[in-house]
Amino acid sequence: MKTKKVLVVGATGTVGTAVAERLTAVGHEVIRVGRRGGDLQVDIADERSVAALFERVGRIDALVSTTGELHFGALGEMTSAQFEVGLQSKLLGQVRLALVGQAYLNDGGSITLTSGIVGEEPILYGANATAVNAAIDGFVRAAATELARGVRINSVNPTLLTESEGVFGPYFPGFESVPAARVALAYQRSIDGVQTGRVYRVW
Amino acid sequence: MKTKKVLVVGATGTVGTAVAERLTAVGHEVIRVGRRGGDLQVDIADERSVAALFERVGRIDALVSTTGELHFGALGEMTSAQFEVGLQSKLLGQVRLALVGQAYLNDGGSITLTSGIVGEEPILYGANATAVNAAIDGFVRAAATELARGVRINSVNPTLLTESEGVFGPYFPGFESVPAARVALAYQRSIDGVQTGRVYRVW
Ligand SMILES: NC(=O)c1ccc[n+]([C@@H]2O[C@H](COP(=O)([O-])OP(=O)(O)OC[C@H]3O[C@@H](n4cnc5c(N)ncnc54)[C@H](OP(=O)(O)O)[C@@H]3O)[C@@H](O)[C@H]2O)c1
Ligand SMILES: NC(=O)c1ccc[n+]([C@@H]2O[C@H](COP(=O)([O-])OP(=O)(O)OC[C@H]3O[C@@H](n4cnc5c(N)ncnc54)[C@H](OP(=O)(O)O)[C@@H]3O)[C@@H](O)[C@H]2O)c1
Repeated sequence: MKTKKVLVVGATGTVGTAVAERLTAVGHEVIRVGRRGGDLQVDIADERSVAALFERVGRIDALVSTTGELHFGALGEMTSAQFEVGLQSKLLGQVRLALVGQAYLNDGGSITLTSGIVGEEPILYGANATAVNAAIDGFVRAAATELARGVRINSVNPTLLTESEGVFGPYFPGFESVPAARVALAYQRSIDGVQTGRVYRVW
Repeated sequence: MKTKKVLVVGATGTVGTAVAERLTAVGHEVIRVGRRGGDLQVDIADERSVAALFERVGRIDALVSTTGELHFGALGEMTSAQFEVGLQSKLLGQVRLALVGQAYLNDGGSITLTSGIVGEEPILYGANATAVNAAIDGFVRAAATELARGVRINSVNPTLLTESEGVFGPYFPGFESVPAARVALAYQRSIDGVQTGRVYRVW
């Protein structure tokens, strides 16, 4: 397989670390991006910061996003401002990476975003997460029909990671978790495979 | 059937006019709200305007939203600011109505939001619409699990309206349209029925 230049935004996180390891292990060149950590830094909620990242990195073969914040909290007390956290960060932040990044992808390149099981399986305090994750999976289904030059777009929709059980486990009663290394395979499948507009569920 | 006090936001529009007519015909008391028209005015993108509307109207049996703008345009030229139009208006605007409105609903009341077929069936220039409509359907599935006092929440997901063929028809090649009067039935079904967390597709 030809080595690809892959930009991983969120590469210092639980999901992103495993993705960067897998892609490196199969011979790809990975540029690790974090908010504060990584080889390069970006704030996905800031248009200028995202534009500057792509200007700096130049052309790539694959863009991966394993990032984005959500708001978790009781619906009865939720404010619009809290709901907007997930819209600005995990939803619009990732969409911004795709919209700005599309022009930097080589022909036949790919974009892979991250959603999550809560988009399809609601949990307590998860109304923002369900809406945002469903929107991301929707965005890739639609964007796949319009991307030019053979550029593909997919999402990876993981369940709770085994590595995150300590933090989020109580919110996922009876959910099976999956190791980050297994979730990472789905990103490789998106990058090195042929499909577009796909939601790769890892549950 | 007991007469219900129903607040219809977007009641002066194509969908909303048919909904208000149907609800009136079956004996409900309808308060028609528009941005500029209607009995009362609100801007769903403005938190204070929405709060003032509910303060003024007081307790209700049902909240219906048949409103919200989307951005339509080519993905290759779409900016984050354009994508945000649908997030602020149709998505967060309707979520805001639900979040603020939940406290004003009588026990056993209902909230009915509007999504649309593009959430499941992408069309050219529709990436924002797919994401936003999918998010709305997701929000109601999740919110239904947390609403208190027997308050229910559903969405109506219409295909292209026959009345809107002149404007949007070219973007829906080969799609069957449905008369607004048929779409209006789904809102009554949500208000006078027993289900919650349902997406009522009218296609
Ligand atoms: N963990 C799970 O169980 C799980 C399950 C399903 C879905 N997901 C989804 O997977 C994604 C990653 O989750 P995670 O658990 O790996 O998160 P994480 O460990 O908190 O890592 C977040 C990553 O994103 C970066 N980041 C945070 N805010 C950013 C911003 N505004 N701009 C750019 N980068 C930013 C962080 O950089 P710094 O390290 O420099 O701050 C870090 O690399 C999220 O969308 C999450 O919802 C996670
Ligand atoms: N028409 C279709 O074929 C179709 C199909 C599927 C889904 N939908 C969805 O159904 C909903 C209504 O569509 P429609 O065709 O009936 O729209 P429409 O005819 O343009 O009517 C829009 C309604 O919303 C009100 N409105 C607009 N902006 C507002 C704001 N910021 N705050 C409060 N109210 C506002 C308008 O009030 P004023 O009249 O006072 O401006 C009007 O009552 C939309 O979400 C649309 O996406 C429509």
